[in-house]
Amino acid sequence: MQELRDKILSEGTVLSDHVLKADSFLNHQVDVALMERVGKEFARYFGGRGITKVLTAEASGITPAAFTALAMGVPMVFARKHLSLTLNEDLLTAEVESYTKGNTVNLVVSQKYVRPCERILIVDDFLAKGEVVRGLIRLAEQSGASIEGIGIVIEKSFQGGRGQIEQTGLPLYSLARIAALENGTVRFVSEEK
Amino acid sequence: MQELRDKILSEGTVLSDHVLKADSFLNHQVDVALMERVGKEFARYFGGRGITKVLTAEASGITPAAFTALAMGVPMVFARKHLSLTLNEDLLTAEVESYTKGNTVNLVVSQKYVRPCERILIVDDFLAKGEVVRGLIRLAEQSGASIEGIGIVIEKSFQGGRGQIEQTGLPLYSLARIAALENGTVRFVSEEK
Repeated sequence: MQELRDKILSEGTVLSDHVLKADSFLNHQVDVALMERVGKEFARYFGGRGITKVLTAEASGITPAAFTALAMGVPMVFARKHLSLTLNEDLLTAEVESYTKGNTVNLVVSQKYVRPCERILIVDDFLAKGEVVRGLIRLAEQSGASIEGIGIVIEKSFQGGRGQIEQTGLPLYSLARIAALENGTVRFVSEEK
Repeated sequence: MQELRDKILSEGTVLSDHVLKADSFLNHQVDVALMERVGKEFARYFGGRGITKVLTAEASGITPAAFTALAMGVPMVFARKHLSLTLNEDLLTAEVESYTKGNTVNLVVSQKYVRPCERILIVDDFLAKGEVVRGLIRLAEQSGASIEGIGIVIEKSFQGGRGQIEQTGLPLYSLARIAALENGTVRFVSEEK
């Protein structure tokens, strides 16, 4: 998605060889008009797969997932990383390591909203090592739902997450694929240039 | 907003005299089409106030805030409750008690995205005791920004948050105001019937 790659080049900040800061449009401040177009692009790509629900994890995945769900005409569900008083029954859980926070969290989703009959599209903001996305896959698998695809806003293709997901055979579509962040510069995977 | 009150009556679950569960359309699974209309209603109500940014707190506030921002043509910023590797400079913080999680958290926002020149609309999913909203007000005040209004999806009018916010003189608009949750029944504030 050219507009997204342009945004990464103009507003993203390379903090290290592994960390890209996208705080001005994705992770903290959110360019909602761009996210609406991101949602429409996922809906276009995964249209025809009979998706019944979009699944993501709090917090940064929520905006792209919400706009994808709107464009597809289905509800969105976000897995919690922090338990709440009102999330208290029929829970599915998956333990994942958080790369940017340096700890382990439990992704939690209520079985009521991820039913065996569902056809799930997983959407997340970043794919690095793939911990969170694989956690979401495990949640959907536990429920018996069918996973129809995975949509990622920004993939850091050098951190192994794509390989892990490709092994599952699930369709994976990333809107921007970063090949490297060396020397403070963003280099995209060449097929996208 | 009649559609929202109908949704609360048909899908909300009264867990106690103080807790309403809205997990099927707001807090966990999200009815994004309803949230789009929520966003348009906030944009209609607060239009003309020159809003430059919508401010909320992760995680449940993000969807209504994103659709409000889209309808107003401005960016959305969500305050973090959990620090991230990439949120690391010029931070404004406000300590708040979490009613549903039973602990204390720091709301954190980067000063870069809440500038003194901004005209801020605060949006959140629930108003109970008003802790989070008052935290967001303190964040915006620290930055020197002008707070132009507060939009709440569901207000529990019996828990004191409204009174606390009214003392600030800021315009407060709640789309559904709940007078009581006694005997397992939702009773709305009568002016809205």
